Amino acid sequence: MTREPHTLDELIDALPPGAVITDPASMDAYRWDRANDPAAGVPLAVVRATCTDDVQAAVRFAAATGTPVVPRGAGSGLSGGSSAVDGCVVVSLDRMRGIEIDTGTRMATVQPGAFNAEVKAAAAAHGLWYPPDPSSFEFCSIGGNVATNAGGLCCVKYGVTTDYVLGMTVVLADGRAVRLGGPRVKDVAGLSLTKLFVGSEGTLGIITEVVLRLVPAQRPPTTLVATFPTLQGATQAVIDITRSARPSMLELMDRVTIGAVEDELRMGLDRTAEAMLVVQSDEQTDAAEREIAAIQALCEQHGAVECVATSDPDEGAAFVHARRVAIPAVERLGTLLLEDVGVPIPRLADLVLGIAAIAERRDVTIAVIAHAGDGNTHPLLVVDPADAAQQARAETAYGEVMDLAIALGGTITGEHGVGRLKRPWLRDYLGDDVLELTRRIKTALDPAGILNPGAILE
Amino acid sequence: MTREPHTLDELIDALPPGAVITDPASMDAYRWDRANDPAAGVPLAVVRATCTDDVQAAVRFAAATGTPVVPRGAGSGLSGGSSAVDGCVVVSLDRMRGIEIDTGTRMATVQPGAFNAEVKAAAAAHGLWYPPDPSSFEFCSIGGNVATNAGGLCCVKYGVTTDYVLGMTVVLADGRAVRLGGPRVKDVAGLSLTKLFVGSEGTLGIITEVVLRLVPAQRPPTTLVATFPTLQGATQAVIDITRSARPSMLELMDRVTIGAVEDELRMGLDRTAEAMLVVQSDEQTDAAEREIAAIQALCEQHGAVECVATSDPDEGAAFVHARRVAIPAVERLGTLLLEDVGVPIPRLADLVLGIAAIAERRDVTIAVIAHAGDGNTHPLLVVDPADAAQQARAETAYGEVMDLAIALGGTITGEHGVGRLKRPWLRDYLGDDVLELTRRIKTALDPAGILNPGAILE
Repeated sequence: MTREPHTLDELIDALPPGAVITDPASMDAYRWDRANDPAAGVPLAVVRATCTDDVQAAVRFAAATGTPVVPRGAGSGLSGGSSAVDGCVVVSLDRMRGIEIDTGTRMATVQPGAFNAEVKAAAAAHGLWYPPDPSSFEFCSIGGNVATNAGGLCCVKYGVTTDYVLGMTVVLADGRAVRLGGPRVKDVAGLSLTKLFVGSEGTLGIITEVVLRLVPAQRPPTTLVATFPTLQGATQAVIDITRSARPSMLELMDRVTIGAVEDELRMGLDRTAEAMLVVQSDEQTDAAEREIAAIQALCEQHGAVECVATSDPDEGAAFVHARRVAIPAVERLGTLLLEDVGVPIPRLADLVLGIAAIAERRDVTIAVIAHAGDGNTHPLLVVDPADAAQQARAETAYGEVMDLAIALGGTITGEHGVGRLKRPWLRDYLGDDVLELTRRIKTALDPAGILNPGAILE
Repeated sequence: MTREPHTLDELIDALPPGAVITDPASMDAYRWDRANDPAAGVPLAVVRATCTDDVQAAVRFAAATGTPVVPRGAGSGLSGGSSAVDGCVVVSLDRMRGIEIDTGTRMATVQPGAFNAEVKAAAAAHGLWYPPDPSSFEFCSIGGNVATNAGGLCCVKYGVTTDYVLGMTVVLADGRAVRLGGPRVKDVAGLSLTKLFVGSEGTLGIITEVVLRLVPAQRPPTTLVATFPTLQGATQAVIDITRSARPSMLELMDRVTIGAVEDELRMGLDRTAEAMLVVQSDEQTDAAEREIAAIQALCEQHGAVECVATSDPDEGAAFVHARRVAIPAVERLGTLLLEDVGVPIPRLADLVLGIAAIAERRDVTIAVIAHAGDGNTHPLLVVDPADAAQQARAETAYGEVMDLAIALGGTITGEHGVGRLKRPWLRDYLGDDVLELTRRIKTALDPAGILNPGAILE
């Protein structure tokens, strides 16, 4: 039966009991993601979908009534891509958590609300691995990962989310559901629509199922931690490492971050260091040890004062943990404005040093952590919410960091998405022609503009 | 200066001397690709572009005059994607062969006419590797590879062309040139337009430069050759291998192919075997030997009668050479109709045995070689061009092979593209809704329908 509700009451009738929330207090939990967009609106209703049919019903209602639709996964987005807009229907996928692992094709069929960590765990139960690993992997959804083409720490060797998405079911702006791609490594029959929907941030359709490629379990890594007296030395080491080796992780933390993490963990990190690299190799043990030794030599060439290498997975995990707690640790210093600008690797030093200059000029604390191996940085702007002047300076700095990235041939967003917060900088980054091309595709697929209006495009 | 030629004479004036060919005999070389499309038309002119500007001039002429444009790389396509259409401008990219390797970003900036093998060689000169390896890598162009999202032998471990394309310059239907993406592993600012153009077969724009991700040089492989008395045994071995190991090559040849290759090379292959697998591992030597030993054990479990494993790269290369000459070897038996249907791995046996049944029913010789590790097969239909009845039966079988792939949850084309030859089967594969979605994107980007008309879509 095709359900075509034309009123909110008909929508409520068309969906399972309790699937539609209209009580304002209960809807509050669905208005913001982790970007805490101050402009988030008040929805007409929240639909907690249980299946593709439910999503179709909600979108058909929206199409029939011209109601905006804001899709939502786990609400862990950092660019305001799932901020509610006034009078919208929020389509929350949080109840759609199914995961099926097929060892024959080595693929997972996953509903969008499943957490990244749940997919990893389900794959691991079969000796398989789903590589993409945003820092938020324990509480972000696969739907959101696909919608933003999320990255993470392993991308330096294993690529980003789109590299693992082979197919999907997506509900289009008119409520039709289509299947794109499928469990086939190779498939070139028709346009690459699957890849177009990856990273489209809910503006072209709502993804209700994805087919993900899995790989054999990762080997236990060998880990190196190297501390540097200068940022230049650390970033130059990164350039030389990526030129000659293939680490499975290559992360950088600056002095502010090191201090915040040490406050939190008391693990004896060197607070006087200007930068610390955390590097892993997941080759076979002896090959990994050789690779890590070569990387250590490069670090030492660039002035690393202390290097600790270990093949003990637990010891290595402690250092990765230090990296993973960096954002919450810095968050203890104040409210954060999170960036995710990226540059081609050779410009990494210019970016990191330029960010330090912006921090000084605007008198704002900016901690920098970076997926250094792919040139993707997270400047964390620390703001005291009680200090309006500082807040204003931080917002200026937030834009200047993106301007700097663009000037260095980089991107305004490497893995979080444009959402609503980064939209004002998109034209400067893409240019008029590419923005117009983007608009043409948006219009072709969502002529009434009901799908996540305000995200990516105005 | 923007060149906007409105007549053929103006186009000739706008381009370098000799860039425009209008002599019918000279144009003949630009009318067909390797699909030898019998319906190929006669162009109005052939433009041998030397730069993006030249391509823009040709497209602006086409846009102003409503002339169809057929882009063309090395002419090695197998689905008729660059068959000329009557009165078109063929835009040949064969003169645009530039390759720049940037070791700092570990990326290559490549013009579309450069051969795949040339990109591999340029990367290798810096200790780097461009993995995608269509069988035609010595004479196919990167532009064609990107336009068809080409595959190859290493895809089972290293993915397909799209996984290596990070950016491009593309000339749109109105003659504007835009840059999409760039030398950044992570970039989610705006829609994934780069990925949309990969595999678009010249129907959305003409790619004039690509930015390709490179990886460190591949390690010398360890090779296993296993022969099987039954196709079922070989395909079941493939399923078990892909479930537990990660070979860098996993190829299958059937009895007809083994015989044809043995006729050609006289290397002592077992002509009585029903199937032969050629498997490689490129892990560190000891790890590779363990992986190959485990794979050999799986082959033996499934009835392999002879297994030869070697860590000697030259000896391994001889077996890979046997696989690589398979198409020309079978071609000695007659004219070929080449297929590239694929299925999810667990259906591989059904596909290969179903193809054998079609061959028998239609009384046509069909040799099967397969990138078995990703379920992608190449049924080679052998036709005596002097035998019209056989030709007709082969054409029926060609369609039945695609129907079979669809019925098994597979694709009508895994790596060659739809082009013009496979277009009649696209609707059955995609369904009406996805075909309509495809049409909407095509119309949004090429409203006048001048870009490669007849390829992918009618």
